Amino acid sequence: MTPELDALAADERVTLSRDVLRFNDCDPLGHVNNVVYATLCESGRVRYLEDRLRPLLGPSRIFVIVKLTIEFEAELFYPGEVTTATWATRLGGTSFTMDQAIFGAGKRAARGQGVCVTLDAQTRRPAPIEGEARAALERLTVA
Amino acid sequence: MTPELDALAADERVTLSRDVLRFNDCDPLGHVNNVVYATLCESGRVRYLEDRLRPLLGPSRIFVIVKLTIEFEAELFYPGEVTTATWATRLGGTSFTMDQAIFGAGKRAARGQGVCVTLDAQTRRPAPIEGEARAALERLTVA
Amino acid sequence: MTPELDALAADERVTLSRDVLRFNDCDPLGHVNNVVYATLCESGRVRYLEDRLRPLLGPSRIFVIVKLTIEFEAELFYPGEVTTATWATRLGGTSFTMDQAIFGAGKRAARGQGVCVTLDAQTRRPAPIEGEARAALERLTVA
Amino acid sequence: MTPELDALAADERVTLSRDVLRFNDCDPLGHVNNVVYATLCESGRVRYLEDRLRPLLGPSRIFVIVKLTIEFEAELFYPGEVTTATWATRLGGTSFTMDQAIFGAGKRAARGQGVCVTLDAQTRRPAPIEGEARAALERLTVA
Repeated sequence: MTPELDALAADERVTLSRDVLRFNDCDPLGHVNNVVYATLCESGRVRYLEDRLRPLLGPSRIFVIVKLTIEFEAELFYPGEVTTATWATRLGGTSFTMDQAIFGAGKRAARGQGVCVTLDAQTRRPAPIEGEARAALERLTVA
Repeated sequence: MTPELDALAADERVTLSRDVLRFNDCDPLGHVNNVVYATLCESGRVRYLEDRLRPLLGPSRIFVIVKLTIEFEAELFYPGEVTTATWATRLGGTSFTMDQAIFGAGKRAARGQGVCVTLDAQTRRPAPIEGEARAALERLTVA
Repeated sequence: MTPELDALAADERVTLSRDVLRFNDCDPLGHVNNVVYATLCESGRVRYLEDRLRPLLGPSRIFVIVKLTIEFEAELFYPGEVTTATWATRLGGTSFTMDQAIFGAGKRAARGQGVCVTLDAQTRRPAPIEGEARAALERLTVA
Repeated sequence: MTPELDALAADERVTLSRDVLRFNDCDPLGHVNNVVYATLCESGRVRYLEDRLRPLLGPSRIFVIVKLTIEFEAELFYPGEVTTATWATRLGGTSFTMDQAIFGAGKRAARGQGVCVTLDAQTRRPAPIEGEARAALERLTVA
């Protein structure tokens, strides 16, 4: 844990997800490959969406990512565990933005940001975020 | 190409699939991680099943693997391409066996064997291989 | 936990490793892709080797897998955790065999078996397992 | 091929890399998982660096990514092939930026951008891009 992660963990608008690093997450440079950070970001986003929005939206909505940004700050190594913090930072009509921070080995290893769009599961077209889901996301969004 | 691969390519009962190795297929030992060989086997199996059986079975059947065996014979390195040969070697009531050989860098890198079971897509229970699909597999099976 | 896993956990010759399933471990069939089981087996093998043999062998030896067998017994789903049990079952001159069992969602999901060869890290040629390492493996091998 | 990819292919400052999609690149939504796009970006970056800079820099330099941005524009499906175009767009003292475009199924599926830093392979500290490598990158950089 770090003071930053402690603060995130204490904020009920933040979802924490935990992953275990695997031997084949590592590449010839001996560290966890950069692509795995995108996997960790996805783990965090899915956890957030399933825990926070799925109960309000039911199976009629799916979420797709339209933009992903990762800033790599520290190497990660096997064996180890990581904790990913995910929170909403912007709410649009059909889209929203989640910020993320990945922690491992006692320090922040990366920051991530994902822009997601809500789709109708049938038509696969953007669907407005309305009603309870919008109210929930408004409450959850960290300015 | 190797003489063995040439012979397999000339046998119309054999399906060839081609894959391109990726940087993050490689692990800290600098070579393609052993798990990627399982991915190459899957590529070959899926290619075989989609090309040979799917047209006869339609969407009502799915195939699941119940046993996989891989004998690792040579290291593979990035960059490179691999060719996987897949052919049926045994036909049971609801299951069948596919043998495989993976070739890269001018030599055989692995042999694989997968035992698959045919399931009804709805019930997810084993479904007999009958009719045209059975006739086709009988014709395709290499003794 | 299952009675079988409890028994394995109580046997000090068995190494347990724990993994967290990831969203992108899952494939279009909605379950954890079969290739991920090979990753879980590798996690278990590496854990065993690093915990049991590395302290005795130092950095001069590496281990490569020459044969992998997986019997798939149950589907695994995201989210979830798995525990992999790994133990030695055969000791040869330069090679040894490890058996494995993967548990998730309260049941055994797969059995695995890996045959490994010990290589000299410099020459990459098979190196005999001798001295303390052999004595340790003899003690650890489950008949 | 698309007109945009044709134009990129005709520009000798652009490196093209080709990848084959795999069954287990796909996730429960039935399409290629977003994380695989990061793998394709990496394939492109590594190809560019190995072809363009490695011959000038030798083994004393390694490249690490410090920031990755991907804009997802279209779904990709198995089976299929993708072509990734990679070119330099900014040259700093120790870092440089590469822009990328991923094409599959006759259209652009994503745009990527990676910021890389050159490290001394021994010290793992940022190393200035000098001499022939700088001259080459200046020539290759697309304004």
